[in-house]
Amino acid sequence: MGLVDRALDGDRLALARLVSEIEDESPAGDAALGELFPHTGRAHLVGVTGGSGTGKSTLVNQLALKIRSVQGNGYPKKVAIVAVDPSSPFSGGAILGDRIRMRDLAGDSGIFIRSMASRGALGGLARRTRSVVQVLDACGYDLILIETVGAGQSEVEIASTAHTTIVVDSPGLGDEVQAIKAGILEIADILVVNKADLPDAPKAVMALRMALELGYPKGAANRLQDGQAEPVATPSIWTPPLLETIATRGEGIEPLVRAIDGHRDYLIASGEIEARQRGRVRAEMDHLLRDQLAVDFLSARGEDAYQKAIERVLARELSPRQAVQSIIRGAPEGR
Amino acid sequence: MGLVDRALDGDRLALARLVSEIEDESPAGDAALGELFPHTGRAHLVGVTGGSGTGKSTLVNQLALKIRSVQGNGYPKKVAIVAVDPSSPFSGGAILGDRIRMRDLAGDSGIFIRSMASRGALGGLARRTRSVVQVLDACGYDLILIETVGAGQSEVEIASTAHTTIVVDSPGLGDEVQAIKAGILEIADILVVNKADLPDAPKAVMALRMALELGYPKGAANRLQDGQAEPVATPSIWTPPLLETIATRGEGIEPLVRAIDGHRDYLIASGEIEARQRGRVRAEMDHLLRDQLAVDFLSARGEDAYQKAIERVLARELSPRQAVQSIIRGAPEGR
Repeated sequence: MGLVDRALDGDRLALARLVSEIEDESPAGDAALGELFPHTGRAHLVGVTGGSGTGKSTLVNQLALKIRSVQGNGYPKKVAIVAVDPSSPFSGGAILGDRIRMRDLAGDSGIFIRSMASRGALGGLARRTRSVVQVLDACGYDLILIETVGAGQSEVEIASTAHTTIVVDSPGLGDEVQAIKAGILEIADILVVNKADLPDAPKAVMALRMALELGYPKGAANRLQDGQAEPVATPSIWTPPLLETIATRGEGIEPLVRAIDGHRDYLIASGEIEARQRGRVRAEMDHLLRDQLAVDFLSARGEDAYQKAIERVLARELSPRQAVQSIIRGAPEGR
Repeated sequence: MGLVDRALDGDRLALARLVSEIEDESPAGDAALGELFPHTGRAHLVGVTGGSGTGKSTLVNQLALKIRSVQGNGYPKKVAIVAVDPSSPFSGGAILGDRIRMRDLAGDSGIFIRSMASRGALGGLARRTRSVVQVLDACGYDLILIETVGAGQSEVEIASTAHTTIVVDSPGLGDEVQAIKAGILEIADILVVNKADLPDAPKAVMALRMALELGYPKGAANRLQDGQAEPVATPSIWTPPLLETIATRGEGIEPLVRAIDGHRDYLIASGEIEARQRGRVRAEMDHLLRDQLAVDFLSARGEDAYQKAIERVLARELSPRQAVQSIIRGAPEGR
């Protein structure tokens, strides 16, 4: 039996090897991805993003444990964690992180964990993350937690390919960090203030509520002001609930699991899940199309012609845009 | 006189308008960029990156003031600050930041400041930043400080297009933040521990030294251990100097200016400046080529055909890669 069939059959060792092939973007990995694709589309993808120091990894671990221990309503579910750390292309942080996590979560065959780093190459991490998530989806993981560190553009991009995006905050990270978060609030389906036992927690909750009021219609803001922390089942518009957790003590995790389910129900009932799915496929194909067209073009036109165009730019004879036009159109001047 | 000529002539209002056009990627902006390109290539581009809470913006402001007040050896120089904040696509943070900075730096016509945010569109920020930097270069700014928030992939990408990259750290940001920085150490030409008056500063300096020892050959590590904080003039290999600053009090800024000059001298003497320039042009052209090929392809092939391919992926008939192959090659099955 081949690697793909064994992975589909639940062989975790085969799955781990397959994920590595796909991370390497080897020809075998690409072929496997094509084989697996018809089996995808069943998992619920949950992005978890937020600044460093928010206790995000602990929260993700606790969430995985809870998803494994809750009973009824389709639970326990198989859960995978994909931890993405774009900022450490060279460090062994990803591997170290896996080991620490293994200690907590090892022994449960319904949990699969993989950390991903940039491997020195800028770009491509979002693409490789998408591919790894597809494999896990195909191999029967019901819930895939995609954890991203920080709040940069690529992290936001990765998180926003999920069905449900959880933004994690914590008290006492300073004003600058708060300001940074203003941007990622917009992508939040669920907001979590972790470390809710710290003295500054009420201040952090208040700040997020104010930010939400700016971003959402009056009615929605009022609902939040009323302290309603859990979503109404399948509402017609979604207002991000604001939850408080103490991940180190496992507190507030079950309401978070319910909020994820609530958001999933909402996405299905409203039909928005199809729109998100379509957006995700479109984004992925846009990337692949650009890559493939560039590869085809350069192999047809020759690397030499491209190098010559680069030289003309270095000599300031043409701007980069003019040079690209010239090599595509054969017209040296003009945009 | 047109906008471009007025900007080249030193008209700051014209320059500000031009920068806006270029940020908008309007046809007029693109045309202006082509006109300005022959005038580029004189500025020294300095990337300043690091986590939030490091006092990076204050450091950049102080650096700009110092560059304006130092005398001799080509100083004072005209300086521009481009503050890039990819995480706030929706907030007014960029504008607010400009106002706060204006208060400190206003009135000096040799300083130009611009903040850039994502404007809701993921992607494109690195490209727009490159374009804005080109305009400032063409218009006679000798030193361009490109400040990026955080340590995500796009920030690293933006910073690494600079000639000289400064990585800023500060004491007491917690272990997780330290770990994140391991990755961006690799791109540092100069390391700064800001807030050097805090009690934890020696610990932060020690941690960075240890990280450097892991990354650089033994001799280089020894040099750093000897406490040599300033670069030798035009050495044959570059070892990132580790400087301490207290930006709020303007302390340690002049050694930083000298370190930037030292790195620039090194780049020129070693010929590495051409390699970096070539890499930068290549990266920019790669992006432009991909964009243009995709636009051309979709307008020739028709958006309809592309939509149909997307539908087949949504129906799980083809994987995204197979669908892209099929639309390019006309072959429904790929590898």
